[in-house]
Amino acid sequence: MKKSLGAKPVVYPTPVFVVGTYDKAGKPNVMTASWAGIACSEPPCVCLSLRKATSTYHNLMQRKAFTVSLPSEKYVKEADYFGMASGKNVDKFKASGLTPVKSTLVDAPYVEEFPFVLECKLIHHHEIGLHTIFIGMIIDVKAEENIISGNRSFSDLLKPIAFDPEHYVYYGLGKILGKAFSIGEAVAKK
Amino acid sequence: MKKSLGAKPVVYPTPVFVVGTYDKAGKPNVMTASWAGIACSEPPCVCLSLRKATSTYHNLMQRKAFTVSLPSEKYVKEADYFGMASGKNVDKFKASGLTPVKSTLVDAPYVEEFPFVLECKLIHHHEIGLHTIFIGMIIDVKAEENIISGNRSFSDLLKPIAFDPEHYVYYGLGKILGKAFSIGEAVAKK
Repeated sequence: MKKSLGAKPVVYPTPVFVVGTYDKAGKPNVMTASWAGIACSEPPCVCLSLRKATSTYHNLMQRKAFTVSLPSEKYVKEADYFGMASGKNVDKFKASGLTPVKSTLVDAPYVEEFPFVLECKLIHHHEIGLHTIFIGMIIDVKAEENIISGNRSFSDLLKPIAFDPEHYVYYGLGKILGKAFSIGEAVAKK
Repeated sequence: MKKSLGAKPVVYPTPVFVVGTYDKAGKPNVMTASWAGIACSEPPCVCLSLRKATSTYHNLMQRKAFTVSLPSEKYVKEADYFGMASGKNVDKFKASGLTPVKSTLVDAPYVEEFPFVLECKLIHHHEIGLHTIFIGMIIDVKAEENIISGNRSFSDLLKPIAFDPEHYVYYGLGKILGKAFSIGEAVAKK
């Protein structure tokens, strides 16, 4: 029996995007966003939603570029910190000891220590309500060589983080359940 | 050392949304979409991106409503099947043996057997390229009573599925890494 929980923004899982931008003066900032995902295959695009209260919102509007650095499990504390602190009050790179790297492709910094990075140019935004959704075209994807290993899934090697937006908990990924566009054949043949 | 993988739509994790719609004649359809996530907190909204080639695209344009049913791990084969087959050629509910339930709040069906459901009204769409992004306002969230259990995270009980879009693999969620808006305090105090 299903029970109503009311109207609230909850799905499982949500990702942990660490979004890198420069402010007007060129100071690098990062913030964590979980209202985010892939938006298009061709051109490859991501979407992420931000409140106007964030520094990243204004940096993005001005610079029209951002990066997404995906933390591995060992950086879950830093990822959480990037979602708690504000770039208005603190230099989050300095406070965390992590390293901003200037992208050579877009006008934004990424996190050197995080193993997986998207470099994106803003192509569209739309104000929904409290959040504005931003669509960024993925100009390049970069990953540490040690997580690019033949047929092993990046997820095994990257150890990405998932977020539970109802109970505010971070998860690692667990066991492989099956191969997509494949295990469903058994249903078709029933 | 980071290596370029080229421009491609890859992030970790992506969710497994089973999107329910009615066609012109009132036939229920479902498809699986992983280019999706939360788009806004207030009003609570999800986004999902669809190709024009799908039945769901046209159903959504016509009916302006959809549901998102989140499968638990035990339904990973059905979720995969819903992403492989086309509603143009087959009744996916009949083929899978799963049950369409008419939402009382929006003009769309959801999957009875899946434990977590969002009922949504379309409020915006924007054509990006191959995919069009749809924004739906969440009118209600419904969950099976056995997954709503005090302080235990829904993720433990729901057992949602994550998708690796590079290697086409489904994952379960793994261990809890920490409490959000909390474990980051250690970084702030460094």
